[in-house]
Amino acid sequence: MRAAFYISDGTAITSEVFGHALLSLFPIQFEHDTISFVETKEKALEACKRINKAAKRTGVPPLVFHTFVNPDIREIIDGCDGVIYNFLEHFIAPLEEKLGIKAKPKAHRTHSIHENSYDCRIDAVNYSLANDDGSNVTNYEHADVILVGVSRSGKTPTALYLALQYGIKAANYPFTDDDMDELQIPSFLKMHKKKIFGLTIDAERLVDIRHGRMANTKYSSARQCRMEVREVEKLYKQEKIPFLNTTKLSVEEITAKILSETGLQRYKY
Amino acid sequence: MRAAFYISDGTAITSEVFGHALLSLFPIQFEHDTISFVETKEKALEACKRINKAAKRTGVPPLVFHTFVNPDIREIIDGCDGVIYNFLEHFIAPLEEKLGIKAKPKAHRTHSIHENSYDCRIDAVNYSLANDDGSNVTNYEHADVILVGVSRSGKTPTALYLALQYGIKAANYPFTDDDMDELQIPSFLKMHKKKIFGLTIDAERLVDIRHGRMANTKYSSARQCRMEVREVEKLYKQEKIPFLNTTKLSVEEITAKILSETGLQRYKY
Repeated sequence: MRAAFYISDGTAITSEVFGHALLSLFPIQFEHDTISFVETKEKALEACKRINKAAKRTGVPPLVFHTFVNPDIREIIDGCDGVIYNFLEHFIAPLEEKLGIKAKPKAHRTHSIHENSYDCRIDAVNYSLANDDGSNVTNYEHADVILVGVSRSGKTPTALYLALQYGIKAANYPFTDDDMDELQIPSFLKMHKKKIFGLTIDAERLVDIRHGRMANTKYSSARQCRMEVREVEKLYKQEKIPFLNTTKLSVEEITAKILSETGLQRYKY
Repeated sequence: MRAAFYISDGTAITSEVFGHALLSLFPIQFEHDTISFVETKEKALEACKRINKAAKRTGVPPLVFHTFVNPDIREIIDGCDGVIYNFLEHFIAPLEEKLGIKAKPKAHRTHSIHENSYDCRIDAVNYSLANDDGSNVTNYEHADVILVGVSRSGKTPTALYLALQYGIKAANYPFTDDDMDELQIPSFLKMHKKKIFGLTIDAERLVDIRHGRMANTKYSSARQCRMEVREVEKLYKQEKIPFLNTTKLSVEEITAKILSETGLQRYKY
């Protein structure tokens, strides 16, 4: 199996995202390895050794995705036995020309604590955790968005992703069996109705997920799941709450669709 | 202010990450806008309108970062009044040549529920939430890693990031004031000692963070913070627990360093 390396002087997240996006276009399996914080010549030489070892072991040159701008380190990495794909480099000169200004590379500036949005992202994570699953219904005035839906429709992972990645304070409130007799928006949510975003899910998929947690219970029964989904969707339509079916969507996709539909402002790009 | 657009037929996360990595090299402020799920020609035409509007409003051509492989849509986007940076395109031909195989672009294959690792990431998020802050000390046999540290040293956001991004089941356990008299590793942790990773933080920074939550308490006092940090660091050294000072690190950086030091296997790249 061919090896793929993701390397940078910081977290190497950019290299990982980009390398992964590219390699996913090819129906081949790769061995993945990330080497982060390659900040010195010594570490660059060590990284080269690791790459060269993989080249020997696999018998083919590893693919090396990196984002080095520092010429000293870049030169060392570029000298390894891998095939080099340097994402940033190719675009810097055209951007400099277009912007009429020279790039000022600082070591791992992205994904660091020095980004303006950093504290706000941590605050958002704390907010979303403290307001998970209806645990604090008096606190919604500080929410950027309040996700609602039945149990296991995707609220919690989505709220955490919104907070961690984009600094958005996302509370979430579950509709439970007890609410179903005469389902309505609770008064403490009604006053924040503009912030509410509904999630729904196909009943069959909901049965599967709930079954994995509590098999053979009323909670995971097809009848209960169908009823809950039907009731919340009726409520969303009646109250004109924007909503989304999460059945075939990843957390990243749910998040992207919520951001796009609500126009919520990201605190981080 | 010049506008920057991030566009794709999926979440546009790849475009965002890469555009952001590039633009952060320039000491200029940009207006950011993401257009996700541009899956049809109609949506591509709408996206062009939005870009062209920004061009008129700002008086300069927007920068457009996109990852379209589908030629029909790409052509439409490439015809807008912005400056186009297509990250994938440039690297596909060289990769095809190197791998000896044609790329098979599928619409938004990355960041979708179809990635193998998806269910495992959601399981990991549920695990990390259920095992946050020492809430379930009987469940550590399923952990991939157990983060320990004093309150507010970065355990929870890091555990969630490990889970959400990499599918790693990260529990976390706090050392509290009550533990400090004779600080040791509790028996329920001792049996999983190899999974333990310690976090620490400079006492001054800890005072700041705790002060923001509970001002003028013993919990946030300089004396208490200094004592707690001193005690846990002593424990880490005594017990040979690998540890990391998080004071100047982002969640992404803490995560990258933990992955690198422990060699923990990522379930997603």
